[in-house]
Amino acid sequence: MSKYVIGLDFGTSSCRSLVVDVANGSEVASSVFPYPSGTDGVIVDVADPNLARQNPADYLVGIEVTVTDALRQAREVRPDFTPQDVIGIGVDTTGSSPMPVDANGQPLCFEEGFKNNPAAMVWLWKDHTSYAEAAKITETASAIRPQYLSRIGGTYSSEWWWSKILHCKHVAKDVFDASHSWVEICDWIPAVLVGEVSPHLLKRSVCAAGHKALYSDSWRGLPDVEFLEALSPGLGSLRARLYDHTFTTENSVGHLSNAWAEKLGLPASVVVAVGAFDAHMGAVGAGIKPGTLVKIIGTSTCDIMIHPHTQSLNDIPGVCGIVDGSVVNGFFGIEAGQSGVGDIFLWFINNLVPEKYGVTPDEKFRDLESAAVGLRPGESGLLALDWNNGNRTVLVDVRLSGLILGQTLQTKPHEIYRALIEATGFGALAIIDRIEEYGVPVKEVVNCGGLAIKSTLLMQIYADITGRPMKVSRSEQTPALGAGIFAAVAAGKHVGGYDSVAEAQKAMTGTGTAYMPKERNHLAYKELYRLYRQLHDGFGTRQWNGTMHNVMKDLLTIRDQVRRG
Amino acid sequence: MSKYVIGLDFGTSSCRSLVVDVANGSEVASSVFPYPSGTDGVIVDVADPNLARQNPADYLVGIEVTVTDALRQAREVRPDFTPQDVIGIGVDTTGSSPMPVDANGQPLCFEEGFKNNPAAMVWLWKDHTSYAEAAKITETASAIRPQYLSRIGGTYSSEWWWSKILHCKHVAKDVFDASHSWVEICDWIPAVLVGEVSPHLLKRSVCAAGHKALYSDSWRGLPDVEFLEALSPGLGSLRARLYDHTFTTENSVGHLSNAWAEKLGLPASVVVAVGAFDAHMGAVGAGIKPGTLVKIIGTSTCDIMIHPHTQSLNDIPGVCGIVDGSVVNGFFGIEAGQSGVGDIFLWFINNLVPEKYGVTPDEKFRDLESAAVGLRPGESGLLALDWNNGNRTVLVDVRLSGLILGQTLQTKPHEIYRALIEATGFGALAIIDRIEEYGVPVKEVVNCGGLAIKSTLLMQIYADITGRPMKVSRSEQTPALGAGIFAAVAAGKHVGGYDSVAEAQKAMTGTGTAYMPKERNHLAYKELYRLYRQLHDGFGTRQWNGTMHNVMKDLLTIRDQVRRG
Repeated sequence: MSKYVIGLDFGTSSCRSLVVDVANGSEVASSVFPYPSGTDGVIVDVADPNLARQNPADYLVGIEVTVTDALRQAREVRPDFTPQDVIGIGVDTTGSSPMPVDANGQPLCFEEGFKNNPAAMVWLWKDHTSYAEAAKITETASAIRPQYLSRIGGTYSSEWWWSKILHCKHVAKDVFDASHSWVEICDWIPAVLVGEVSPHLLKRSVCAAGHKALYSDSWRGLPDVEFLEALSPGLGSLRARLYDHTFTTENSVGHLSNAWAEKLGLPASVVVAVGAFDAHMGAVGAGIKPGTLVKIIGTSTCDIMIHPHTQSLNDIPGVCGIVDGSVVNGFFGIEAGQSGVGDIFLWFINNLVPEKYGVTPDEKFRDLESAAVGLRPGESGLLALDWNNGNRTVLVDVRLSGLILGQTLQTKPHEIYRALIEATGFGALAIIDRIEEYGVPVKEVVNCGGLAIKSTLLMQIYADITGRPMKVSRSEQTPALGAGIFAAVAAGKHVGGYDSVAEAQKAMTGTGTAYMPKERNHLAYKELYRLYRQLHDGFGTRQWNGTMHNVMKDLLTIRDQVRRG
Repeated sequence: MSKYVIGLDFGTSSCRSLVVDVANGSEVASSVFPYPSGTDGVIVDVADPNLARQNPADYLVGIEVTVTDALRQAREVRPDFTPQDVIGIGVDTTGSSPMPVDANGQPLCFEEGFKNNPAAMVWLWKDHTSYAEAAKITETASAIRPQYLSRIGGTYSSEWWWSKILHCKHVAKDVFDASHSWVEICDWIPAVLVGEVSPHLLKRSVCAAGHKALYSDSWRGLPDVEFLEALSPGLGSLRARLYDHTFTTENSVGHLSNAWAEKLGLPASVVVAVGAFDAHMGAVGAGIKPGTLVKIIGTSTCDIMIHPHTQSLNDIPGVCGIVDGSVVNGFFGIEAGQSGVGDIFLWFINNLVPEKYGVTPDEKFRDLESAAVGLRPGESGLLALDWNNGNRTVLVDVRLSGLILGQTLQTKPHEIYRALIEATGFGALAIIDRIEEYGVPVKEVVNCGGLAIKSTLLMQIYADITGRPMKVSRSEQTPALGAGIFAAVAAGKHVGGYDSVAEAQKAMTGTGTAYMPKERNHLAYKELYRLYRQLHDGFGTRQWNGTMHNVMKDLLTIRDQVRRG
């Protein structure tokens, strides 16, 4: 008799429930709920493009709507399916997406006084209001706690936990003062499902705590009080109301509460696994193992590897986080990423592509792809930087912006579109190069996420730029599948699950299509990558010093050579 | 009894006839003829965006259509008008736009064997196929004839006479070999009107010969045979079939031929003045005098000043040409310019502005303007270089291209549109600065051309960037008016014209609107100009050496300050 797990995936604009067959990873049913609050699920501020918040009430509605709908679908496609065969639920979310809570673990924005106050909501991963605080944290750590910086790539990000809490203290003192504690939503949602949200009882995942909250066993947990006081007097007292222990994702948080079991139509025996960030769970759903780089390509990109405890591992400058157990217990998780990929294409399509390429964004996307696929590398003479949303790896700097050069009076939208894809491909190669330079070989690249499935052009360009095959994960919902895998491990073999993540992955994951690099294109892209690096290092680093005079001329020379054939 | 002159203006896409009252410059009637050949009047090549040619047959049709139509209109608006009162015709054209001709002065492309051969047509000013030849000419002159470079700003341009002829010799040897001579169209059209087109009799204008053909009395006319042979063996023999003398534009070429007088319905007593380039004549039509910078703002920009013989004048590096008498006899003409202005905006509107800003280019232009006018300097965080068509002054380099940086995921088309206007404003300021640095004070700026009239946003931005009032010429057709002024001077006082250009200008020209700089905006633009210069010098000069790390950060800081108010 088949057993099932449910992966709950909380994205930037919507959440999803996925019902998975534990035996072979078959995805039996899936249901999506777009968050009703804000713009595409995000609370924004027209006066401040850096602000991005979320309403946690949307998550609770989303769980109920999608789980019940997915269970209904599962019964339709598999007549022998019964909710009684569901053994576990796993949860993945965006992150670092912290939220202030009261002493009972209730979100502050659920209280009358803080309703509609964005500072009392979820500070979404892509909120960049805290860039000054991030700089302050980097500077302070550099001065008095250099060890904090060594495993996070040298620079603390405005997307992370402490930057956001500190910014809240600076700009919304009332919210900060009223908060008893702060929680990552990947820890809060499993706690809600088991019915125990008290901040001091809630199980915190090492995945979220790791580099985002600067948590490490090396310094006994979170940063010490003295350091926090150095950031801002009064911040130190928060430490005692946070946490001293963390858990890897194979662990169980507990069983589904009776209230939620009833609401969802599931047995109360269902085990809820410790939560984790979407990228980490996605990497597991894509079959991550040592030597495999998993790229999750969506609005932004996460690049994940794991490295066994048994082998030495150096710090990798500019790589956001190396955390023990953040992906799989027994391995260091290595996390890198690009802060804008699909978001950049969507920005371009929504703002700068006229209707002759189609009326809807999907039509424009299709038309641009088919026009751009015929271009040869270098033919447009364009070169772009993929920094419209800053640069996460290897520069770790949100105070960067987009750049495009090489435009003539003949430049067409599909040429720019291709240049933007290429820019993200060059950014991807910069990450691979950096990881390998520091002794971690990349033997295989497995891609997942919306764009890996949707854009054959993007995948081929990435193969050509990197000179490596680009494999695509068999599953189209790897974060939710990964959450399901952890649910199967947390539930355990005795109820039909697995003993280890590796065992579960073997049964439940695999790759499909592989895009092979074309040698001629790869050679052309080598030249363009050299120029990309010149711009990248020039605009992105303090160290760079040199001339830029060659850039436009080299691009024109390459263009003319390509056009002549 | 009123006397009249006709200004014939040959532009990039169309030609125009303007009937002007000699007494006060009143523009009585005007008629435009779009050239029927090619795309918007330009023969292009999809495989080579540098190519731009023109069919001279279009000019001949255009003269007949527009002159007869303008005369018809003049009779309608002034019942006492009669063609018998027309005393002169002046001609201005684009340039350097040379054309190969046979021994009789007939365009080679009129012959059966060269029909439809773009190399046998007019090589339009904006043809950039000859960039390698331009570099060769600069290099050769630098080695053996440095004096040739000193008055053309140090670099020979691919837009000019010898680059084009040399490129023709390289890529279309049959055309080069079949050509008896080459003529600028500003010399050929007046010759056609008087019925004497033999290459050795045709009066060549000093305006066109000046820096474009490297003609100077200092070295007895055109470059010597040895120099031409050094460029390409066999080129030297062409020199003897070109010219040894040139004429300023106050001179008469002769009287209208009987054939043309009949065709146009004009008396054969009409004097035809020596031709000149549109920018030079436009400057006269805008009322140029010492201390006045005339900016002719259209698809590209020409910036013209005159400097009296009585005062010393240094070479001005990067300023395209200083030629004695090129604008007005008795003055040095100083010519600078930007190779893409309106063309860049049109490229943006035609390619990258979606229909929500309007359906037609005019609607989009209007909508972008009204959206962009509300932005404050620095508010968008964007910065662009105005090099989509290369840079004429002060870099004199066609092997440059466009650049835009500062894009986020929130960047809107009207913000980019404003950034492109600002880029051209910064380019304009770079020219003013350069001219003043070398001892020529700019006391007044008078603008003319389509954009000066059409875009109040552009004019205000230019005033704010430069910190100077931007006056706009009263006439909307200054090149044609300038051609009329020269016609009145060439015809002379005895038939109702004038003795001198200054006398004619006093009666026939004037300014209208003036845009005053706003101090607060000017201060903000000073900061942005500093960053523009950093990119300008970085990407545009070999000498620049430094860091670029500040650029994106400074723009974000300025943006945040402006948004906070």
